[in-house]
Amino acid sequence: MRISGRANNELRKVKIIPDFLDHAEGSCLISFGNTKVICAATVENKVPPFLKGSRTGWISAEYSLLPRSTNVRTEREAVKGRQTGRTHEIQRLIGRSLRTAVSLEDLGERQIKIDCDVIQADGGTRTASICGACVAMGLAIKKMRFKHNPLKNLVAAVSCGVVDGSVLLDLDFSEDSKAEVDANFVMVDTGGLVEIQATGEKSTFNSKQLSEMMEFSRIAIEQIFEIQKEILLG
Amino acid sequence: MRISGRANNELRKVKIIPDFLDHAEGSCLISFGNTKVICAATVENKVPPFLKGSRTGWISAEYSLLPRSTNVRTEREAVKGRQTGRTHEIQRLIGRSLRTAVSLEDLGERQIKIDCDVIQADGGTRTASICGACVAMGLAIKKMRFKHNPLKNLVAAVSCGVVDGSVLLDLDFSEDSKAEVDANFVMVDTGGLVEIQATGEKSTFNSKQLSEMMEFSRIAIEQIFEIQKEILLG
Amino acid sequence: MRISGRANNELRKVKIIPDFLDHAEGSCLISFGNTKVICAATVENKVPPFLKGSRTGWISAEYSLLPRSTNVRTEREAVKGRQTGRTHEIQRLIGRSLRTAVSLEDLGERQIKIDCDVIQADGGTRTASICGACVAMGLAIKKMRFKHNPLKNLVAAVSCGVVDGSVLLDLDFSEDSKAEVDANFVMVDTGGLVEIQATGEKSTFNSKQLSEMMEFSRIAIEQIFEIQKEILLG
Amino acid sequence: MRISGRANNELRKVKIIPDFLDHAEGSCLISFGNTKVICAATVENKVPPFLKGSRTGWISAEYSLLPRSTNVRTEREAVKGRQTGRTHEIQRLIGRSLRTAVSLEDLGERQIKIDCDVIQADGGTRTASICGACVAMGLAIKKMRFKHNPLKNLVAAVSCGVVDGSVLLDLDFSEDSKAEVDANFVMVDTGGLVEIQATGEKSTFNSKQLSEMMEFSRIAIEQIFEIQKEILLG
Amino acid sequence: MRISGRANNELRKVKIIPDFLDHAEGSCLISFGNTKVICAATVENKVPPFLKGSRTGWISAEYSLLPRSTNVRTEREAVKGRQTGRTHEIQRLIGRSLRTAVSLEDLGERQIKIDCDVIQADGGTRTASICGACVAMGLAIKKMRFKHNPLKNLVAAVSCGVVDGSVLLDLDFSEDSKAEVDANFVMVDTGGLVEIQATGEKSTFNSKQLSEMMEFSRIAIEQIFEIQKEILLG
Amino acid sequence: MRISGRANNELRKVKIIPDFLDHAEGSCLISFGNTKVICAATVENKVPPFLKGSRTGWISAEYSLLPRSTNVRTEREAVKGRQTGRTHEIQRLIGRSLRTAVSLEDLGERQIKIDCDVIQADGGTRTASICGACVAMGLAIKKMRFKHNPLKNLVAAVSCGVVDGSVLLDLDFSEDSKAEVDANFVMVDTGGLVEIQATGEKSTFNSKQLSEMMEFSRIAIEQIFEIQKEILLG
Repeated sequence: MRISGRANNELRKVKIIPDFLDHAEGSCLISFGNTKVICAATVENKVPPFLKGSRTGWISAEYSLLPRSTNVRTEREAVKGRQTGRTHEIQRLIGRSLRTAVSLEDLGERQIKIDCDVIQADGGTRTASICGACVAMGLAIKKMRFKHNPLKNLVAAVSCGVVDGSVLLDLDFSEDSKAEVDANFVMVDTGGLVEIQATGEKSTFNSKQLSEMMEFSRIAIEQIFEIQKEILLG
Repeated sequence: MRISGRANNELRKVKIIPDFLDHAEGSCLISFGNTKVICAATVENKVPPFLKGSRTGWISAEYSLLPRSTNVRTEREAVKGRQTGRTHEIQRLIGRSLRTAVSLEDLGERQIKIDCDVIQADGGTRTASICGACVAMGLAIKKMRFKHNPLKNLVAAVSCGVVDGSVLLDLDFSEDSKAEVDANFVMVDTGGLVEIQATGEKSTFNSKQLSEMMEFSRIAIEQIFEIQKEILLG
Repeated sequence: MRISGRANNELRKVKIIPDFLDHAEGSCLISFGNTKVICAATVENKVPPFLKGSRTGWISAEYSLLPRSTNVRTEREAVKGRQTGRTHEIQRLIGRSLRTAVSLEDLGERQIKIDCDVIQADGGTRTASICGACVAMGLAIKKMRFKHNPLKNLVAAVSCGVVDGSVLLDLDFSEDSKAEVDANFVMVDTGGLVEIQATGEKSTFNSKQLSEMMEFSRIAIEQIFEIQKEILLG
Repeated sequence: MRISGRANNELRKVKIIPDFLDHAEGSCLISFGNTKVICAATVENKVPPFLKGSRTGWISAEYSLLPRSTNVRTEREAVKGRQTGRTHEIQRLIGRSLRTAVSLEDLGERQIKIDCDVIQADGGTRTASICGACVAMGLAIKKMRFKHNPLKNLVAAVSCGVVDGSVLLDLDFSEDSKAEVDANFVMVDTGGLVEIQATGEKSTFNSKQLSEMMEFSRIAIEQIFEIQKEILLG
Repeated sequence: MRISGRANNELRKVKIIPDFLDHAEGSCLISFGNTKVICAATVENKVPPFLKGSRTGWISAEYSLLPRSTNVRTEREAVKGRQTGRTHEIQRLIGRSLRTAVSLEDLGERQIKIDCDVIQADGGTRTASICGACVAMGLAIKKMRFKHNPLKNLVAAVSCGVVDGSVLLDLDFSEDSKAEVDANFVMVDTGGLVEIQATGEKSTFNSKQLSEMMEFSRIAIEQIFEIQKEILLG
Repeated sequence: MRISGRANNELRKVKIIPDFLDHAEGSCLISFGNTKVICAATVENKVPPFLKGSRTGWISAEYSLLPRSTNVRTEREAVKGRQTGRTHEIQRLIGRSLRTAVSLEDLGERQIKIDCDVIQADGGTRTASICGACVAMGLAIKKMRFKHNPLKNLVAAVSCGVVDGSVLLDLDFSEDSKAEVDANFVMVDTGGLVEIQATGEKSTFNSKQLSEMMEFSRIAIEQIFEIQKEILLG
């Protein structure tokens, strides 16, 4: 039995408040239970050097924990003078995921930068960031009134893990810290996986467990797509 | 006539939501109109090296703009690898101001670190940070149930400026960007100034204008003390 | 048909030269075809701060590309003054993988640092690094003559991908750069997965393709275990 | 009674040696008693990116303490790899102050960089830097023989404080370290304040004390203008 | 008597394996006994800013120790975030030495970057790097089929020192660490010195010892030129 | 004929003003013609980690150019966030040279840090720094009234070069920039060389030229010893 009373395959309450910020071209506040992330999309008419003159756009992401989003204060990366390995890993994952939702040709020579700032962390910050970032990016693209909409599909993600031998969906921090296996699944709403990261630090896992985690995640991600669509299509 | 319709000596709507974060020892979300800052207080049983063994505590502050708190995206300092001069200047001011509210001897060999993260910027972020930081710190101190309360007094701040020859209180961003003179006043509720910073980049100012700005600020800060007291004493 | 003439499920020639360096406690040169990595294990009688006094050891890894290991020169990270996100991501993966091979309690309060320096890069440098790092670490542990051998099992890894719709094992650089899906599998010789990273940047993938990649990888990793055993047990 | 025997409103001996350096376009060595600062002005035909094409110039300043300018050696910022918050704060103040003395339009698309290097520190290094920087800049501008002299007025500064309840002008280090209130006043010779920074770390202050400090400073700054004029107009 | 059994004026076995790397325009693995360095030359059609438009080329070098090239692990400079003073000193020496071998006018507006990565260190890594770098650069130049060969001459180097009062050629690590005097000589094959660095940290030296070291080095460098010629002219 | 009218083997006017700074334990301003360097010695009761508990002291040096010490402004290293290779090379040379003048055992577990800050640069700044640093260190040691004076001997240095085929002593900047060969000699007053650095970037040199440079330098350094002795023994 989970402390929260949730069923093993049950998501926490997912809420997305669109247009959370006045200045960003697109933005939202996303929460998965107590995990809260501000996602903001910025559109720039300038691409990274490797794309200059290519008529192709780019999507990139940055991720950060507010120092007291965490139980024990996390030192501010601006003070340390460098981003940690974990931050690099997460923001690369968010960027890769978002690029699967967009036709970079239709975007044209523009860059969308997504900022995911975690206000409160209770497990699953990277998957919540992907879900919110897709909405922020979608809102920004909508405002630009493209002839050919570059947003080809939606992208969403959820975490899943094995705790005391049971597969559990959408781990909160207390579950995550004792999980034997920890996995993140990213999918698009046209049906298909775009990223799996599964890690067994305390134990190994087998393909049966992987399948079960994938199945839990597939169904949960469908529910997240519904919430995203309500905002972007509503 | 101000675009917002405010009188020259009128504050924007000031709102403080206490206990905004689950994990911090003390926290709030403070807003001055559209300017919004999350303030979080962390208590550590460890002081900076220069105070080791002194039986005396310390208060320090860190300040940051979320990249899309601003109209044009502000580059993330963690990515640049260093904090800007402006950030250094502001967090030193916040720290200094807070230390005037506390008996560091009564605090004992502990450090309180205040994080001020600006979610949305519309002028006056440093003065809003001081007002919110005082509440976050006050809430954290309250929880520690000291015999001798180290919180000696409250501290609050407001900005004031000269725009088109008129003294205006609590400038928003559009007023701030065309101000001839820009000033910040920090006061304690036991009556007294703890910091004045007044700058005339586009024009000089005289002592009459300074007095008028000081008077506007004094009255406004009294109102802020009322809001702080309601939360800390209520 | 692959340019190299290999079958879709065929590994490149894997060769491990043990004791490649005079000074390291354990070392090897591993090659997967033209990909060549020097792996060196250093044993230190000192653990990271979070483990001090815990009677538990730690394994960490560092990874680097020599500037001309790559076709186009890669700028030296020491000159740039920071490691890239890709480097952080890879060295975290290597460290996590190695820790699944060792009882950190039996290791005692010691740290083994593994350096993986890529001399020549032709695809699969991170998986080759894991395979070689396991040997370097195994040789270092062997020399220490523990009563209870902390090396519980072997760990190895291989890359797999989808190119033009076909699942191919152990991609070289030319295959990797046009792959629709790119995956890395890490397993232990006691049977079980310890990490999957599967990414579809140009296309999505389904669970059937994932299963096929996993099956190809499982068989290939068995072959790598044989080569590791010959050195460590021979 | 002050240790130095000075009256409360008495400046230390102020001396300016113009053209102290062979290579700089303008330079001087300024001393306020034992505080000594080398000020050098460099003229560059290039402005910061935000002013390109604007036909407008810029003035910026850098400030540094030589390691043994101070009683206890100050670590070299080039070795630490970053400038401290204090340095940032001071060089921003110097730059702002100097820009009030110059018509940036008349300067044209040029940048004047002022270097203030403190050879010996005995209190008041930032205000001495402003006074010397104005001379170095004025000498550099003079050499350029503009049709419309961009130097509109002189700028000078002095520190003032409250020690043991008395207002004292131009604090030396021993007075500064026990001051209850510490203030810096920057004025232009056309009459007018350009910056006030007043801080009470050990105590608060009231508007009467502020007025007295302002009055002491106004008179002292008049004397500094005389010395500046002798060099620049002489 | 030297532990290795070598005569005082005897070089260690010098071996150069050309074309050691697949991707570099020119490369080799050079060994002086147990000291082993990978040298790689990269040709870029772009020069440093100070040479733009000059029709003149440039040669620069970078040097690094692999962490376990040394007996005690050397911390990775990319992790520390900066290159050490020793590294800076060595790579400047290598660059300077190589520039004496090349007509930068005949090279044209191109830059050759030489990477010297020490795989194993047993004394004399900087002089081995110079000898190997000359070969890597020579091979890269050869491939470019210039009308006027910019390689004017060869350059090579050797270390020499005074140990227990005797002049010894080509010190290994154990000799180097107890040497009273440590010197490096760089010469060109057209006859002539291009660099001498002689240091007596534990003792001084006189001109007689300097002459003897220079004579030993001159003869040894002639032998190295023979090995270089065999590869570059063979 | 030299522009300055000096004979080929003639030093510029060398002047040393002792006790130039109030706060340093030992200090001087040294000038070689227009080259001026402030040298300051700091004594700390703390040694670098590798000497803890060894009862042995250490001497280290730091070197910096003031931005406008040079004809074209040199960017401030504190702003760039790192010291250049040239700075590293020079401060290592100064430190090494000074350690030959001192018995580190007699110094005891103390560190003397020497700061050499170049106020004005006109060639020969590193050799002037060594000469001045020896005086600053000597003055600091004198004040400490050791039973066994750890200052065993004096150390001094001078530059020499080949310009248009002639050997010239003590090059100024204009001579230095067209020199074919550039050399620095460091000697102790007990007779003996402690460091030679000779470089031919535009041309090679032979042992005859080296001997002539060494002879010029030997005689000039004798004169510098006289000036040092007058201050330290006078």
